[in-house]
Amino acid sequence: MSDEPAEDRILLSHGGGGRRMHDLIRDLFRARLSNPLLDQGDDSAVLDVGAGLAPSEAEGRLAFTTDSFVVDPLFFPGGDIGRLAICGTVNDLATAGARPLALSASFILEEGLPMGTLERVVDSMRAAADEAEVMVATGDTKVVARGAADKVFITTSGVGMVPGGLEIGGGSAGAGDTVLVTGPIGDHGVAVLSQREGLALESDVESDCAPLGGLVAALLNAVGGGVHAMRDPTRGGLASALNEIAEQSGLCIEIDEERVPVRPGVAVACEMLGLDPLHMACEGRMVIIIDEHAASAAIDALRAHPYGRDACAIGRVLPAPAARVHVRTALGTRRILDLPVGEMLPRIC
Amino acid sequence: MSDEPAEDRILLSHGGGGRRMHDLIRDLFRARLSNPLLDQGDDSAVLDVGAGLAPSEAEGRLAFTTDSFVVDPLFFPGGDIGRLAICGTVNDLATAGARPLALSASFILEEGLPMGTLERVVDSMRAAADEAEVMVATGDTKVVARGAADKVFITTSGVGMVPGGLEIGGGSAGAGDTVLVTGPIGDHGVAVLSQREGLALESDVESDCAPLGGLVAALLNAVGGGVHAMRDPTRGGLASALNEIAEQSGLCIEIDEERVPVRPGVAVACEMLGLDPLHMACEGRMVIIIDEHAASAAIDALRAHPYGRDACAIGRVLPAPAARVHVRTALGTRRILDLPVGEMLPRIC
Repeated sequence: MSDEPAEDRILLSHGGGGRRMHDLIRDLFRARLSNPLLDQGDDSAVLDVGAGLAPSEAEGRLAFTTDSFVVDPLFFPGGDIGRLAICGTVNDLATAGARPLALSASFILEEGLPMGTLERVVDSMRAAADEAEVMVATGDTKVVARGAADKVFITTSGVGMVPGGLEIGGGSAGAGDTVLVTGPIGDHGVAVLSQREGLALESDVESDCAPLGGLVAALLNAVGGGVHAMRDPTRGGLASALNEIAEQSGLCIEIDEERVPVRPGVAVACEMLGLDPLHMACEGRMVIIIDEHAASAAIDALRAHPYGRDACAIGRVLPAPAARVHVRTALGTRRILDLPVGEMLPRIC
Repeated sequence: MSDEPAEDRILLSHGGGGRRMHDLIRDLFRARLSNPLLDQGDDSAVLDVGAGLAPSEAEGRLAFTTDSFVVDPLFFPGGDIGRLAICGTVNDLATAGARPLALSASFILEEGLPMGTLERVVDSMRAAADEAEVMVATGDTKVVARGAADKVFITTSGVGMVPGGLEIGGGSAGAGDTVLVTGPIGDHGVAVLSQREGLALESDVESDCAPLGGLVAALLNAVGGGVHAMRDPTRGGLASALNEIAEQSGLCIEIDEERVPVRPGVAVACEMLGLDPLHMACEGRMVIIIDEHAASAAIDALRAHPYGRDACAIGRVLPAPAARVHVRTALGTRRILDLPVGEMLPRIC
């Protein structure tokens, strides 16, 4: 944020509701994210939901989710805050089995942000949205004075339709279910840490940041009602995702340590930093709790998709002890896998 | 942010995905915003839209909107950031004529924020949501280091159903339409300025911040299809709202200066500060572009509602010049009302 002339930076007046804000919205946001809904320029986008519904969606269950993104640095190996903001919300919709209908994007910009940085971020959002086959239908922009925010924060929300017959949620997990993960864990967390100033971590790990709508659609197409719960293990990693499901269902989840896929670069970085890969964030993985009889077909379907090539079973759901996650080690011993307690590294997403 | 012990403040670990974050979500956010959707605790809320639809909504047009709130100070006469975040999004849904189905709320918190401040804000959100008869169905929390944000930013999104037969949007304004406003303008902007440190402005003006879903429902009930466009004149005030509609419709909007209601306290404050009341933000007003034959019935319906008691006609839509807003003065002269160009005061909402 040093050499650009003033006209190539975000000014307070870009958020003031006047001419500059309107020009920014028209020339940057609408130009780069253009689609029929956003182009209308009303305060609310109006989606013609009924017309586009598949017969299985006609009963009208709507998934709705939101996430703020404050990742630091903005650009990291394998992604950036823009791609993350699209993928994170698409993936939260996917956890409900929902097909995304539309996203919103709201920006909080720091005065002085180089316009080129914002353009890169918005271009990346557009590319990720195109990949996920979803539109940014509505948005907002605020600007705060230098020092009142850090460069750019993005909040995305999403709406999607849930096909009929699905009852996917943490509370639907059942004893005997199999626990799947769609790929190696912890890549995103290590990629961001390796990039962050002050941590001279050598690593070639890239973020797994990816939109999983297509992967989940392929899964549901193959095994439909067999899927009981899904979580994307972001902050707090696999440990958090599994503990949440264990709490919601009142059941025990047991995973086998040596079956959880972890890339060598992630394992090494975690050991250097004294971190547990089970606590490290993913941004392109899904944890799936599935009827044990559907697990094998599910793994086949997942592996046939580019974002699920390394899918595998890592554990099972047990009736007790309630709301507990266990890790079974290679030696056959068990330990409790709790939520991370100490200071996790902030602004990972 | 001075005297509270550490345990009564937001820590970085409250955003880390671990135990502290889960406790904060459960004990503060879910406890205060509790409702059946939020209580499920999944990453996406799933709304049973079909079951609750009125017959007129069954064609399934969904309104979707988002806004970030960064107002400074957090508490001001007549409102606070929490009430603002609920009302702003409810009102954006109302501009499409939509009945709100659910809201989302995503928080970006600065490390060190007193827990009591956050509790006050969330309690205020709950009260405003109850008044607007809408639930906060899903949410998110991020924490950034001290100095990387200013206290608390809130992004709300909303989904709502648009009744059949309505085609409300800036593009639907027509020549001959009447321009209404539901009450005096500029109250919110002046209330926030009067409270802001460094501006020793004496004023008893309170923010008009209010959820307008009920008022708009009463309007639509009375005159239905006569309503062509609505805008809530927030940042940039009435000038911005009218210019947007003029641009979208390619028509001219002409308002009569002496018919625009402005409270004496707002007029005095604007004169002191060299600001134009037509540029000052409202947070509980609606600009309505309506068929001229429906205008009188609309005003009656609006005035029968507590948030529309001072509703009145302020102007008309003309066929030309295109995309232009004119102000007719008491002397009969005309001037162009453009968007504010200079540095507007930031963080008004």
